[in-house]
Amino acid sequence: MPLHPDRLFPADPTVRGLARELYQSVKDLPIVSPHGHTEPRWYAEDAAFPDPVALFIKPDHYIFRMLYSQGVSLEALGIPDRDGNPKKTDDRAIWRLFAENWFLFRSTPSRLWFEHSLETVFGITERLTPLNADRIYDQIAEALQTPELRPRALYDRFRIEAISTTDAATDDLRYHDAVLASGWHGRVLPAYRPDFVIDPEREGFPQRVAEFVALAGTPMSWAGYLDAHRVRRAYFKARGATSSDHGHPSARTANLSRGEAEALFDRVVKGNPSPEDAELFRAQMLTEMARMSLEDGLVMQIHPGSFRNHNRDVFAAYGPDKGADIPARTDYVRALKPLLDEVGNRSDLTIILFTLDETTYGRELAPLAGHYPALRLGPAWWFYDSPEGMLRYRQLVTETAGFYNTVGFNDDTRAYLSIPARHDVARRVDCSYLAGQVATHLMDLDEAHEVASDLAYGLAKKAYRI
Amino acid sequence: MPLHPDRLFPADPTVRGLARELYQSVKDLPIVSPHGHTEPRWYAEDAAFPDPVALFIKPDHYIFRMLYSQGVSLEALGIPDRDGNPKKTDDRAIWRLFAENWFLFRSTPSRLWFEHSLETVFGITERLTPLNADRIYDQIAEALQTPELRPRALYDRFRIEAISTTDAATDDLRYHDAVLASGWHGRVLPAYRPDFVIDPEREGFPQRVAEFVALAGTPMSWAGYLDAHRVRRAYFKARGATSSDHGHPSARTANLSRGEAEALFDRVVKGNPSPEDAELFRAQMLTEMARMSLEDGLVMQIHPGSFRNHNRDVFAAYGPDKGADIPARTDYVRALKPLLDEVGNRSDLTIILFTLDETTYGRELAPLAGHYPALRLGPAWWFYDSPEGMLRYRQLVTETAGFYNTVGFNDDTRAYLSIPARHDVARRVDCSYLAGQVATHLMDLDEAHEVASDLAYGLAKKAYRI
Amino acid sequence: MPLHPDRLFPADPTVRGLARELYQSVKDLPIVSPHGHTEPRWYAEDAAFPDPVALFIKPDHYIFRMLYSQGVSLEALGIPDRDGNPKKTDDRAIWRLFAENWFLFRSTPSRLWFEHSLETVFGITERLTPLNADRIYDQIAEALQTPELRPRALYDRFRIEAISTTDAATDDLRYHDAVLASGWHGRVLPAYRPDFVIDPEREGFPQRVAEFVALAGTPMSWAGYLDAHRVRRAYFKARGATSSDHGHPSARTANLSRGEAEALFDRVVKGNPSPEDAELFRAQMLTEMARMSLEDGLVMQIHPGSFRNHNRDVFAAYGPDKGADIPARTDYVRALKPLLDEVGNRSDLTIILFTLDETTYGRELAPLAGHYPALRLGPAWWFYDSPEGMLRYRQLVTETAGFYNTVGFNDDTRAYLSIPARHDVARRVDCSYLAGQVATHLMDLDEAHEVASDLAYGLAKKAYRI
Repeated sequence: MPLHPDRLFPADPTVRGLARELYQSVKDLPIVSPHGHTEPRWYAEDAAFPDPVALFIKPDHYIFRMLYSQGVSLEALGIPDRDGNPKKTDDRAIWRLFAENWFLFRSTPSRLWFEHSLETVFGITERLTPLNADRIYDQIAEALQTPELRPRALYDRFRIEAISTTDAATDDLRYHDAVLASGWHGRVLPAYRPDFVIDPEREGFPQRVAEFVALAGTPMSWAGYLDAHRVRRAYFKARGATSSDHGHPSARTANLSRGEAEALFDRVVKGNPSPEDAELFRAQMLTEMARMSLEDGLVMQIHPGSFRNHNRDVFAAYGPDKGADIPARTDYVRALKPLLDEVGNRSDLTIILFTLDETTYGRELAPLAGHYPALRLGPAWWFYDSPEGMLRYRQLVTETAGFYNTVGFNDDTRAYLSIPARHDVARRVDCSYLAGQVATHLMDLDEAHEVASDLAYGLAKKAYRI
Repeated sequence: MPLHPDRLFPADPTVRGLARELYQSVKDLPIVSPHGHTEPRWYAEDAAFPDPVALFIKPDHYIFRMLYSQGVSLEALGIPDRDGNPKKTDDRAIWRLFAENWFLFRSTPSRLWFEHSLETVFGITERLTPLNADRIYDQIAEALQTPELRPRALYDRFRIEAISTTDAATDDLRYHDAVLASGWHGRVLPAYRPDFVIDPEREGFPQRVAEFVALAGTPMSWAGYLDAHRVRRAYFKARGATSSDHGHPSARTANLSRGEAEALFDRVVKGNPSPEDAELFRAQMLTEMARMSLEDGLVMQIHPGSFRNHNRDVFAAYGPDKGADIPARTDYVRALKPLLDEVGNRSDLTIILFTLDETTYGRELAPLAGHYPALRLGPAWWFYDSPEGMLRYRQLVTETAGFYNTVGFNDDTRAYLSIPARHDVARRVDCSYLAGQVATHLMDLDEAHEVASDLAYGLAKKAYRI
Repeated sequence: MPLHPDRLFPADPTVRGLARELYQSVKDLPIVSPHGHTEPRWYAEDAAFPDPVALFIKPDHYIFRMLYSQGVSLEALGIPDRDGNPKKTDDRAIWRLFAENWFLFRSTPSRLWFEHSLETVFGITERLTPLNADRIYDQIAEALQTPELRPRALYDRFRIEAISTTDAATDDLRYHDAVLASGWHGRVLPAYRPDFVIDPEREGFPQRVAEFVALAGTPMSWAGYLDAHRVRRAYFKARGATSSDHGHPSARTANLSRGEAEALFDRVVKGNPSPEDAELFRAQMLTEMARMSLEDGLVMQIHPGSFRNHNRDVFAAYGPDKGADIPARTDYVRALKPLLDEVGNRSDLTIILFTLDETTYGRELAPLAGHYPALRLGPAWWFYDSPEGMLRYRQLVTETAGFYNTVGFNDDTRAYLSIPARHDVARRVDCSYLAGQVATHLMDLDEAHEVASDLAYGLAKKAYRI
C-alpha cells in the first residue's frame, strides 16, 4: 500500500489537521545531517550501489538483529565473518529470507524507513511478501544501475544541504579531499572521532597511540599526545569538520592535575590498564577535548552508555556492530561535574549530550541543559530514533529545557537511502507534538510554525555551526 | 452500571472503531493461561467455592493491600495470622467493610476485574455500595452453591484451553494426577518452581535441600543436587509441565567452574550463607536451569526484582504475600551476561524475562530480546498488569523488539474468577494499541488482525510450547 | 492572545467536553496551599510589591535558569551576588531582555504561569514581545501600586483558604504572630524546616546547633538536641503549623540505638563530619522527626533527591537557589525501611513523600504508599509541576496507589502571583485525566466529580490536617 500522506499524525481530526499544516511548511526544507555514518567514498567516487542485499540488509544492524533474535542465523543472511568472508553469497536467497520474515518488523521504525525508500526511491508501493520478493529484488537491482540513483544524484534528490561523516582520528580524509577537489557542490564534512586512541581498553591501544603521535609528528608523551589531537583536529577542521564525537561506555569526566594526567597517560600507554585507569583516562580526555573545543571551535558530541559487543560468541565470530550493543543505565549528574566545573559556564562552547537511558531525559539531561550554557541535548538516539522514542523525548525534555536547548534531528545512519525517511519521521513526529500544543492552547499556531522550522532545519545548522 | 462494551478503547471515534473491530475478532478466542497460581485441587475436586469473602478478599493481596494502606487492619479483614488463625470470622461484616471502602479502588485494575466478575459470573451490574452490600453478598453466596459455578464448569465457561499452576519442586502433584486420572477434558499443567530449594536465604534451606535430594533419590552433593532437579523436572514434565519458574531477588546469573560450584554448594547447604554466597548460588542455578531446559525442553521463566516482605511487622504477624512485596531497581544487561554467554544464542531454548522495573523495557529488555534468539519478553507483570501498564509495555518494547519477541498475556493470579477479566483487559488494551497503529498508518488493518490474534492466543501457545 | 477557556484539555471533543464539565465544578473551589515559600512578611505588612522585575524575574529560578542556559548572564538579569549586590539595576532594561528571550519559554510551565498572571491579575492579554515590553512593564508597575494588588487583597481574590510558608527551625515567626495579632481572617501557617540544624554538611553546622539548643533552652547533648526540636516544634504548632518539611539529598533513614545515636551526634557537632556520618545523621533524624510527629501530630514531608548547587562557579558567585539544583536517582525501597519498620504501620501518622526521580512513581512510591498506612504521595514536584509531569504522575501512580493515597496539589512556590495559575493547571490536568477515565468507561461521571473535588481541595486539607 502506498505511504499514507497522514502517517504518524495523531488520529484526532483537529490535531491531525494542525499537524498536516505544520508539516506542509517544513517537509521540503533542506536536510542538514550533522551526525552520520555514510561513506565519504560514495560521494567521492559516485559509483552505483551494488545490489538490494548490500543496500538494505548487510549494513543494517536493525534489520539483521531482529531476524537473528527470531532464529535466523547471521550466516544465512550473508553477514561476513571477522575476516570479511560471508558463508552465503546467494543474494537473491537472502532477500527471499528477508521477505519471509518481513512481518517481524511490524511497528518498528525499520519498516517506516524501508517502505519510504521503496516508494520514494524505487517507486514500489507494494508490501514486501515472499510472493513479490523476486520481482521487487529485480526492480531495485535494475534501478540501482541508473544514474539517478548514484550517491551524488541522491544527495540532490534528498535535498541534502550538508552531511557529516564520522572518521577515525588518523583517517587521511582522502575522500573528503577528493570531494572538495572535484568541484561538486555537495558538502561532505568529516567529524573527528578519536575513541580508539582515547579508550585504553580498545584492542591494540598502545600501538595505535604510537601511530597517532607519529602521524601528527608530536612526541610520545602526555603533552605530545594532546598536541597530536590538536594537529589532527586542525587537519579535520581544514577539511570542513565542525564537530568531534565521543562514544564512551559512560559519561564520566575528570579534571586531573597535569602531574596526575601525565602519570595516568604513562600507565595506560603501557597496555593492560586497570578498569579504573581506563575509565579515568577516558574521563580525563572528555575534559581535554572540551578544552580543545574552546580553542578550535569544534562542537563536541558525547554518546555514552552502550555496552558494546554484549554477545560474546557473535563478537568472536562476526566482530563489532552486529546488533549486540545494549544500552546501560547512565549517570550524568555526578559524571559530568568535573567537566562542567571547568567549562560548563562557557556560552562559546557547545557540548551535545546523547543518551540511551531515557530515564535521564527529565531527571538529569533537561535540568542540566536547562541551566548550563555549554550544554545542548542531542535528539532521541539509536533505539529511540523512532516515533514513540521521539515523542517521549519531547514530552520529557521540553517542559524543563524548552526547544532551544535541543539541536534538531541527527539521522546517525550508514543506510544512505534511509536518511530522508528518518528526517521525514522526525518532522512528522515533531509537527504532531507541536499540533498537540496548539490544540491544547499551549502555543499559538504562528509560534508552532517557527518552532517546526527550527526543529527541522535551523537548530541543527546553528548548533553544529554548519 | 453495566460494563460498557467500549470500555478501555481510545476515545477518538476512528481509533475506537478500529479497536472495536479488532477486539471483535479476538474476544472469543480460547484462553491460554501459561502462568498462574490457581489451586490444582480445585480442578481435581471440583468443589464449590466457599463464600464471597474467601473468593474476593482474603486471597487477593491487591485488595487488602489497598485497604490496609488506608488504615483498615488486616485483622478486621479476617486475614489469618502466621498460624492460620483469623481474628475475625464474621464474613458479612468483612464484606460490608469492603463495600464501604470500595471507592478506594477507583481507576485500579482491581475494580475492572471485580466488576467484570460480578457481571459475567453473577449477573450483578450494580456498583457495590454499603447500601447494597448485603444483597450482593447473598447473591454471590447463593450462586456459588450452583453447579454452574464449580471450577470445572467455569473452566469451560471461561473458554480456557489450558491453564498452568505453579508448584513447589517437591510437590507430589497429586491433584494434577487426579485431574489426569479423571478423564476430564481440562488441561491443568504444573510448572516447576524450585525457589525454596535454590535460594539459600529461605527458611530451613539446608533441611529442604536434604529432603529434596532424598525425594529424588540422589546423593547429597552438587552433582546429586543437580540430578535431583533433573529427576523432579522429569516428574513434572510427565504430568504436563512445559515450563519452570524462578522468582529471584535479582536477575544475576553466573557460570562457575565445576569446582567452584561444588565448593559453593558445600558452603550454602551448611546454612547461614553470606549474602554474596546466597546471591551467587541463585545466580549459578539460573544457568544450571537453562542448561537443563536445553536437555528437557522446559521453557524457563525469570521473575526478578521484588523486595519480598518489606514490612517487618506484617511479615512477623501474618507471613508472606500480604501486599508488602515492593519492586526494586533491576539490572539485566550485566546480570544476564554469564547466562547469555552460555546459552543466549540457542534458538531451541526459550527464556522468558519479566520485570518490575519498567525503566528496563526500552533500555535493556527490548534490546536484549531483539537480539538474543533464546530470549522472549513476558507481558507487563503484577503492578503493571493494568491498562496503563500494558500500554507502556507496548510503547516501550515494540519499536525495538517487535511483537514476536513477546509472549502474549499471562494472568499470574490465584483469583480464578478474575482470569477472564484479566485476559479481556489485555485483549482490549492490545487492540487499542493496534488500532492506534492502523489509525496512524503504521500498519494495515489485515496485519493488525493477525497481530491481535497472535497476542491474544497464538504467541502464548507457541512460546510456552502448549 | 487571551487564555483559552479549554487550554490543557484533551483535543478529542468527547473527552474535552467531560474535562470541561468536571473543571467547571472545581475551578472555583478555595485554594489550600499546604506547602510553599511565600514570605510571611507580605501578609503581615501588606505592602505593595515593588516592580515587575522583582515580581517575575529575580525571585524565579525557572525563569533565569532558562535564560542563563541560552547565554544570558545572571549579572545582566540583575541577580544579586552572594553579598546581595546586583551589578545591574536598570529594571526596565532587564525586562526588555526578558521580553526578547520570551520565546525560549514556549511549552514550558513558566509560560502558563506568567500569562495566567498577566491576564487574571493585570488584565493583559497580549503576548510579551520586545515591541510591547515597555508598555506592559508600565501597566504592571502601575497596577502594583493599587490596593487591589496588595498581598491580603490578592489572598482573597485568589480564594486562598489557608497557605503554609516554610520557616527555619530557629525562626521567631514574628510575622506569623503579627498576622495572628492583626485579626485578619487569612490563615498563614508556618512549617517546621530544620534542615540546617539537621544536615552536618551545611555551612556552620556546629555553631547553628549550638544556637538552636540555646534558643530552646536545652542542654548541648543528643537528648538536649532532640528536646530542642520538641520545643521548637511546639512553638511552631502554637502558631498554626501542621507540618514539618525535610529536604535531604537522599531518602535514607536509620534507626540507631540510643548509644549509637549519641556517639554519632557527638561526632557531627564537632564539625567536618565524614560523608557517611553526615548521611547517617540525616537518616537518623528522619526517624526521630517521625517519632516526634507521632507525639505532636505534625505531618511530615520528605523532599529528597536534589543535588544542590551543582554549578560550582555560580554557587561561588551567586549562592544557592540559582537554578543549578539537579535531580539525582533516588532509592526509596531500601532507604525508607528503617523508618517504616519503626512507624510505617501507624495510621495516626502521615508521611508525605516527594520525588525528583519519576522512575520511582510506579516502581517504588506507589507500591509503598499502596501498602503502608503512614505513607502518602506528594504531587508531581518542581521540574514536574507541569502538565506532562502531572499527567505522568497520575498514569504511573493511580493504578497501584489509587487517588486516596495522594494528597492533592502543592504549589511549592515563592512566586505569589503564580499560585492560582499553578492550582489552575493542576485542576485542569486532573480533570483531563479523569475525563479520560470516564470516556474509556473506567469510572462513572458522578465518581469523577467526587474525585476531582477531592484532588482540587479535599485531599490537601485532610492530609495536611488543615
